[in-house]
Amino acid sequence: MSASEPAGEFGLIAWIRERSKAGGRVALGIGDDCASIRFTPGAEVLVTTDMLMDGRHFLLGEATPEQVGYKSLAVNLSDIAAMAGVPVAAFVAVALPRGSAVEVAQGLHAGMAPLAEAFGVTLAGGDTNAWDGPLVVTVTLLGETTPRGAIRRSGAQPGDAVLVTGSLGGSLLGRHLAPKPRVTEALALAEVASIHALIDISDGLASDLGHILEESGNLGATLDAASIPIHDDAREASRLDGRPALDHALNDGEDFELCLTVAPDEANRLLADPPQGVTLFWVGVIDADADAGLRLRRTDGFISNLRAGGFDHLAGAGES
Amino acid sequence: MSASEPAGEFGLIAWIRERSKAGGRVALGIGDDCASIRFTPGAEVLVTTDMLMDGRHFLLGEATPEQVGYKSLAVNLSDIAAMAGVPVAAFVAVALPRGSAVEVAQGLHAGMAPLAEAFGVTLAGGDTNAWDGPLVVTVTLLGETTPRGAIRRSGAQPGDAVLVTGSLGGSLLGRHLAPKPRVTEALALAEVASIHALIDISDGLASDLGHILEESGNLGATLDAASIPIHDDAREASRLDGRPALDHALNDGEDFELCLTVAPDEANRLLADPPQGVTLFWVGVIDADADAGLRLRRTDGFISNLRAGGFDHLAGAGES
Repeated sequence: MSASEPAGEFGLIAWIRERSKAGGRVALGIGDDCASIRFTPGAEVLVTTDMLMDGRHFLLGEATPEQVGYKSLAVNLSDIAAMAGVPVAAFVAVALPRGSAVEVAQGLHAGMAPLAEAFGVTLAGGDTNAWDGPLVVTVTLLGETTPRGAIRRSGAQPGDAVLVTGSLGGSLLGRHLAPKPRVTEALALAEVASIHALIDISDGLASDLGHILEESGNLGATLDAASIPIHDDAREASRLDGRPALDHALNDGEDFELCLTVAPDEANRLLADPPQGVTLFWVGVIDADADAGLRLRRTDGFISNLRAGGFDHLAGAGES
Repeated sequence: MSASEPAGEFGLIAWIRERSKAGGRVALGIGDDCASIRFTPGAEVLVTTDMLMDGRHFLLGEATPEQVGYKSLAVNLSDIAAMAGVPVAAFVAVALPRGSAVEVAQGLHAGMAPLAEAFGVTLAGGDTNAWDGPLVVTVTLLGETTPRGAIRRSGAQPGDAVLVTGSLGGSLLGRHLAPKPRVTEALALAEVASIHALIDISDGLASDLGHILEESGNLGATLDAASIPIHDDAREASRLDGRPALDHALNDGEDFELCLTVAPDEANRLLADPPQGVTLFWVGVIDADADAGLRLRRTDGFISNLRAGGFDHLAGAGES
């Protein structure tokens, strides 16, 4: 440790504090019992929290602390995007591995700070601890609604088109550490279209579209295999493990693209003239007069039921 | 596991969801990408987060999951109290030990829910994971200011009286698992008095009053040994380890009483006629024209410098 590096909790907090600022909507940041934030009058406050654990969501050593810091904020930004909200302030609680606590904390901060800056987010507080266990990072992100309000999972309607904002699958080859949160894309889409339902793809398209169907009153949907945008990583993963690339695209998860449903005429209009910087693929429809659940129209025209292969974080054994 | 118990993450979330409610100011609770909360127009939003780790802040086995759940919410309520704020909604991220994940989650919830109910807090969201590591619980609590605004650490003035709301020391004998957050007391005090500076005693009176002194512009203060309310547990701890009971009262921490500074005439008025249910002890003064830092007037009249023995969460080895 060089002389300029902080020792102990109070030193580290001071170090982070120097690099974090109250200001703007954060009336009071690090250095009191709570942070204090002014939100836009009339806005609802959006809150999301994600805990990432070494050995579960990443492997420290394969992933750098910078990558872990980036990811831990990015996944929360993606949740704010999934409501078409505006992110405002992040709170970071960490359990640092004793012995490398200071280096890991500085790495986490180095990964988080540019992302926070890019999305106008203040790192406004947190809790710093060291222990003999593996690294654990909990980021809680606060955002706010625009005057249009939050877009929920629950508004899908029979006949809706199902759209996604990017190619899917194979993120575990490395992309899962550097997701691009679709905050700007969600706001741009909500500005020009009436989005009925919106979610970010964390568990996999099959599983996350399944959440939309359940929350919208147990609807049914059919995905069109030929229309699913398959990421190059999904093809590479398929070469490595022999599972179809489409299976990777539907079920791998950690894509952090958006999945949305809109009326079919809106879908046509959006695909013809998407907001600047937004990529859209029409991947399926919410069925009218059909059974609940998810189906896949295969390239041979046959329609089969699709079992969501989303990762169950309690039942699963290993990292996701 | 009985048939009525949930299996896996989705089952557990459903189980918690049934026991949590949107409603009131929580427009949208568990079951979407973010929770959505309506705060009182004009209020600032207060945010605090604390991470508790098995082997560090508690020992699972000695402490039950119910106790851990209670404490993890209580320490955050204490931070809201330390701003004289009103708690609103809590978010709970957990890393559960695989194998006992469901029982531990239900225990945590059983410990948290009555406390949340008692303080009008909605359990509005979170993140549930299992792993091979020890239990980690991160609670992020949101509150709001009253029209009086937040009371900070930084407003102490030379000449102020220093008050505390209860007896101190020895909390590690067990009391640290069941702190009583002084939310109501803080609001009652702020209603009737002009509080200059306020903090909750988590690191110990010496250390936490030290924070007030630093944040108020490097002031000095003198505590009166004869006036410090020493908890019976501090006397018991003294019998067990031979350290003076006063030392325990000043430095043990995890008391979660409030420490506040007010003008001396306010202090006289408050002690003569405290708000209902509020206990107050006048323990010292913010010095005028004196060096920065904390001093102790001993019972023999001698004044000595007091080194804060507050626990350093990074340097320390063991639980706090």
